[in-house]
Amino acid sequence: MSKNNAFDNGIVILGAGNVATHLALALFKSNYRIRFVFNRTINSGKELALKLNADYSDDFTKVPVDADLYIISVKDDAIEEVANSLKKTNGIVIHTAGGISLDVLKNCKNFGVFYPLQTFTKKRSVDLSEVPILVEANNEITKNKLFQLAHHITMNVFEINSEKRKMIHLAAVFSCNFVNHMYTIGSQLMKNSESSFDLLKPLVIETVNKAIDMQPENAQTGPALRNDKKVMENHLKLLSEYPEFEKIYRFVSDSIYSSQRKK
Amino acid sequence: MSKNNAFDNGIVILGAGNVATHLALALFKSNYRIRFVFNRTINSGKELALKLNADYSDDFTKVPVDADLYIISVKDDAIEEVANSLKKTNGIVIHTAGGISLDVLKNCKNFGVFYPLQTFTKKRSVDLSEVPILVEANNEITKNKLFQLAHHITMNVFEINSEKRKMIHLAAVFSCNFVNHMYTIGSQLMKNSESSFDLLKPLVIETVNKAIDMQPENAQTGPALRNDKKVMENHLKLLSEYPEFEKIYRFVSDSIYSSQRKK
Repeated sequence: MSKNNAFDNGIVILGAGNVATHLALALFKSNYRIRFVFNRTINSGKELALKLNADYSDDFTKVPVDADLYIISVKDDAIEEVANSLKKTNGIVIHTAGGISLDVLKNCKNFGVFYPLQTFTKKRSVDLSEVPILVEANNEITKNKLFQLAHHITMNVFEINSEKRKMIHLAAVFSCNFVNHMYTIGSQLMKNSESSFDLLKPLVIETVNKAIDMQPENAQTGPALRNDKKVMENHLKLLSEYPEFEKIYRFVSDSIYSSQRKK
Repeated sequence: MSKNNAFDNGIVILGAGNVATHLALALFKSNYRIRFVFNRTINSGKELALKLNADYSDDFTKVPVDADLYIISVKDDAIEEVANSLKKTNGIVIHTAGGISLDVLKNCKNFGVFYPLQTFTKKRSVDLSEVPILVEANNEITKNKLFQLAHHITMNVFEINSEKRKMIHLAAVFSCNFVNHMYTIGSQLMKNSESSFDLLKPLVIETVNKAIDMQPENAQTGPALRNDKKVMENHLKLLSEYPEFEKIYRFVSDSIYSSQRKK
């Protein structure tokens, strides 16, 4: 990096999960110096550190105190505790969790949130160049440094406060995790009929393209929308051996029908 | 069509909804002769008929009795009644509904099911060339004729019995209609935070690609999978003004977590 770079003293990664891995690799590829990986499980910490040409440890006392940036990408419930162990550093402390407030970091000096709005799985590479990164910070200088960092990864950087970010994170849970669970149920039902999820590929691709092109509220089809009661009763019978899926079927169908009536 | 074609006496379309429209247009483009469109609402029947160079009526007594093929694409609950009005024809009578048995057509002479596994919206064109068409018939001659017809539309034609087809249709409801409803909820939550569903585009595209590449059961991420209770409690608070969405959130999150534990 140039001498003007805000992070010449290097970056510490705390965590070695999906988000930590993808973010650290993206920064490393943009020539940022990743100095250290801390992870409670040494093997995955080591695996990530070797890719980044960084030191690593499972002992928190080994974490350098003079780095310029600390990226906390641990399980959401553990962020605050890790941040409190970093309150003496002058470096910027950030977390990457969409659903967690900025203020869990408030015992640090300079802090922020750096939330990439994407789903990450370790062994699957993702192009981050169009992924929105939502940034928040406790002061202007920190915010500007984080914007500079984010712009090295993506063209889409936004300042979003914690309240809005949490709602966006919730929207992302519905649009990604819950969507994937609908696919998972679909996949299980396909296996039950000796078929495969692959047969649904043209359907699922068209479904997402249609929602993007038309907005999802204008794209709905199917028995719940049409209130085709006979078909829905048959579906509930087919689901009698899956009580969880049956509940989901009832509530989602009711919600589709009542959304339509509100339009 | 060549003189060897099974449907030289033309095709009658019963219905003018999403499936009727797309299927009739695909057959018309493959040079099949669409003779007549029957629809209870004259305007949409006329609109479709004009595109097909066909006659049309909202009076069932005007439907020609000597066509070679009758495609029933009406609301699922009305299929049987329409079929019973066609029991004297020698032509093949088919319906296009994934969730309805072959045997609702049993009072006809030659009959079958012709189910395109896709979501259709009238004003949006769809490339059918890779869409699976699931075929079933009451005799071999009819089945062969329907396979020939389907192969003029797509390369993916399968013989699937009613029991399996209903399960596939149910899988399609989860993977398309329910997915779109998750997008709709996501879109509404985005609007609430003065954002737009468009911001989720990289996320929803990656979600579907990951599910197809890895199988959805291996692609899950998010707070429910990680059992991040603090985040989920916050989400439920954010949903307190949407009781329907709150129920869906609870049941889908529970189902994600228990699916993971079963793996």
